[in-house]
Amino acid sequence: MESMTFVLFGATGDLAKRKIFPALYNLYVDQKLPQSISIIGLGRGELSHSEFQEKVKDSILDFSRRLEHDAANMGEFLDYFRYSSLDVNSEEDFQQLLQLVKKREDELDLTQNRMFYLSVAPEFFDTIALNIKNSGLGQTNGWKRLIIEKPFGHDLKSARELNKKLSRAFLEEEIYRIDHYLGKPMVQNLEALAFANPILQSVWNKDHIANVQITAGETVGVEKRAGYYDQAGAIRDMVQNHMLQILMMTAMDKPEKINAAGIRHEKRKVIESLRPLKEEDVPYNIVRGQYISGELNGQKVPGYLKEPGVNPSSTTDTFVAARLWIDHPSWTGVPFYIRTGKRMKEKSTRIVIEFKNKENEQYKNNQIDPNLLIIEINPNENISLQLNSKNPLNNGKVTPIRINFSNEQIGLGVPEAYERLIYDAVNGDSTFFAHWKEVELSWEWVQPILNAFEGNFVPLHEYQSGSYGPAASDSLLLENGFKWWLDEKLQESKDTVLHI
Amino acid sequence: MESMTFVLFGATGDLAKRKIFPALYNLYVDQKLPQSISIIGLGRGELSHSEFQEKVKDSILDFSRRLEHDAANMGEFLDYFRYSSLDVNSEEDFQQLLQLVKKREDELDLTQNRMFYLSVAPEFFDTIALNIKNSGLGQTNGWKRLIIEKPFGHDLKSARELNKKLSRAFLEEEIYRIDHYLGKPMVQNLEALAFANPILQSVWNKDHIANVQITAGETVGVEKRAGYYDQAGAIRDMVQNHMLQILMMTAMDKPEKINAAGIRHEKRKVIESLRPLKEEDVPYNIVRGQYISGELNGQKVPGYLKEPGVNPSSTTDTFVAARLWIDHPSWTGVPFYIRTGKRMKEKSTRIVIEFKNKENEQYKNNQIDPNLLIIEINPNENISLQLNSKNPLNNGKVTPIRINFSNEQIGLGVPEAYERLIYDAVNGDSTFFAHWKEVELSWEWVQPILNAFEGNFVPLHEYQSGSYGPAASDSLLLENGFKWWLDEKLQESKDTVLHI
Repeated sequence: MESMTFVLFGATGDLAKRKIFPALYNLYVDQKLPQSISIIGLGRGELSHSEFQEKVKDSILDFSRRLEHDAANMGEFLDYFRYSSLDVNSEEDFQQLLQLVKKREDELDLTQNRMFYLSVAPEFFDTIALNIKNSGLGQTNGWKRLIIEKPFGHDLKSARELNKKLSRAFLEEEIYRIDHYLGKPMVQNLEALAFANPILQSVWNKDHIANVQITAGETVGVEKRAGYYDQAGAIRDMVQNHMLQILMMTAMDKPEKINAAGIRHEKRKVIESLRPLKEEDVPYNIVRGQYISGELNGQKVPGYLKEPGVNPSSTTDTFVAARLWIDHPSWTGVPFYIRTGKRMKEKSTRIVIEFKNKENEQYKNNQIDPNLLIIEINPNENISLQLNSKNPLNNGKVTPIRINFSNEQIGLGVPEAYERLIYDAVNGDSTFFAHWKEVELSWEWVQPILNAFEGNFVPLHEYQSGSYGPAASDSLLLENGFKWWLDEKLQESKDTVLHI
Repeated sequence: MESMTFVLFGATGDLAKRKIFPALYNLYVDQKLPQSISIIGLGRGELSHSEFQEKVKDSILDFSRRLEHDAANMGEFLDYFRYSSLDVNSEEDFQQLLQLVKKREDELDLTQNRMFYLSVAPEFFDTIALNIKNSGLGQTNGWKRLIIEKPFGHDLKSARELNKKLSRAFLEEEIYRIDHYLGKPMVQNLEALAFANPILQSVWNKDHIANVQITAGETVGVEKRAGYYDQAGAIRDMVQNHMLQILMMTAMDKPEKINAAGIRHEKRKVIESLRPLKEEDVPYNIVRGQYISGELNGQKVPGYLKEPGVNPSSTTDTFVAARLWIDHPSWTGVPFYIRTGKRMKEKSTRIVIEFKNKENEQYKNNQIDPNLLIIEINPNENISLQLNSKNPLNNGKVTPIRINFSNEQIGLGVPEAYERLIYDAVNGDSTFFAHWKEVELSWEWVQPILNAFEGNFVPLHEYQSGSYGPAASDSLLLENGFKWWLDEKLQESKDTVLHI
């Protein structure tokens, strides 16, 4: 791997502490970092290099997935780190940063490959990008890359403006937009599942699939993020990015080549084919919900409007369900349903693919369930297939069984999303980052919903904390003769012995 | 359920003790026997009714799958049983039997439904059948049925003769030929798996299946059955009946109606379409083997020729592998491989369906394994599907995973083959019994092999005890570019953590 400099803006922030430092350390232990690397942290406060290294060390001890830490290794690793205080508006601070970067490049004999990771609030993105350019930090004889975190804009217009500003300093192919759902093993695995398995590949289409259901449920409420969340809502926080990315990964056709360009090409086709919603159609295809008080895990929890920091008359959506159609020959007539919400009954991100049941006329009296392919993304990673089988305990009646693969056991051994993504960015592999066109087209699709929410053309349904969202979300499927699978049942399926 | 009489010939024999009495008892406990039933045991020796009932009780205590026995229940159950001594050639004994049957029918107010179960050596089948007719036992105003056990003949000619004799006393639809492999849950389940699951149904054909491999391996040697086995060999003991029955169940098309007639119709089509072997083709499609000494589970075991009761210059086959073609549009170009043997490395009856790998050009560098559907019939019952998935511990390399359904946990709750089959026969459901045409056509297909073995046109390969049979068995697949799946690997797949 090429030697490089890793410049981290927001190095004293929460994300750095919880995710980025532990990810870098785990990559280091796995020998997945360049042998020569300089890592420079930036923050507003004044810290000595060694004080900063202590912070890094503490973060690893607190948050690394590894249980054992080799103290000797840790010393070598910490020695990569330097700190510089920086006010994003100060040209002088950027000059100081440039000097430090160059000094370390000289000391360590590094190629001028420079990665800039912006772990800061989005309002600073363009200033930092511009100052990287103006200061000369961006003039390298190696590569330069920019990693940024969501949100990429607040709506279509602001996203375009942000992108325009970033593109004054970085080319599209230099920008790595993190959508950490794309770093999750099961999301990355969708491509292999669909394309490396002839028997799944041959049924992964409109002829065999009745509908696709993507759920991202959280049990937590708004927590300490009310300031951001009350402005964003589920539609911006989850749907525009994560949910649409999972949808693209699920619905993409097999690329001619399985690489970043091939996969992005196919994802683009999906998002381009998403049937646009007119504002007046929004109420018929989108369900907006907001949680009221209720019970979760035996504990009473307050409603959204009672959460600290939330406007008591807020109409912000804490739940969104949507029916989407992909106007592409591969998916004619197959509805895709997505839903996401806070304070739902269970924490679960999953995809359920329901297959058509047309072959089963012979078993009609038996009321046979459809076949399901269930991909659990979070918090468990699991693939299971619900088939029908005879039940020898019930005179051979045909009943559903679920055949499971679970990797719970490997647990700690699996790299986390941030490890995967940082590793990919360091290696210039953009497969699992959001391309600008994907972001832009997602905003385009979402914009009429934002308008309809803002204009209040869409009912705001209350739903009890600890439920699966408002009843309107069930009606959305019922209208097409379907239902959300696995609701209430997940527990059952884990407790019961599944029998043939 | 209709009241009835169950007449058991060979009631003091081993099968009655180990299988039939426990099966009747378990059916009784599960309330799957008629509320009014008379069971009459026949044997050569003299026994009082109560002595016989004691034998029945001992057999249940020793061999029933149920751990707890309700003594009170047992008394009621044992009271069903009566005994009569019988010499199969004695008309007088049959008259005595008829009187007992009628007496019990009167006492218990039974309809004259009479089931005759012939758990005796095959040479007595025709005499007994004839005497049932001549004695008047077969003249009932209810139904009469005959259950017989294999072997149904020693070759095509003797099978036809036997059938001709039986049919003087019983109609084909009155004859229930037990093939206990057809009583195994996973064999009965093949029909539901293939037809009640649209996603399997759509790949269960020549377009998606590369080949089908049916293995029935035993670790035991010839045991105490040398007298029979040395005359029969694996070809008669296993191939002509069990292996071809499993093949029919696996390869049958979806019946118009899922019932006995529909399934038998489709099975018949398979066995009728089996490409006949000419004697001169036998050496190229059939592998004959005989075990020599070796090691099994760390113990040295003797070769076949050293087994007590075996002719020291015997050329009997203790292993047979075969390649079969089904000349039916559904299966054009798909080889079916079967193999069965004694003293093999593992006790396992299983079907492996290997799917075509044509969709995987994009992953060629990765050398991706084909998808497999693995149906374990014995001793474990399991369905698993081998798919390809990314391995997060290996930089996302695509590797095989196996998704499993296992019902090991229900263990004792599952009815045994004999329970299922007796229950079906009592209810007049012949779905999982061998029809005469299936038996006859199986013998027809096997006859050239018998001739070739007898004429010694086929090499007799030695194979070590504890192996997977002679190397020629591997070559049989290698010629078509295939290999036997799961050999050596079964252990590995159970011990290793399967990861995505």
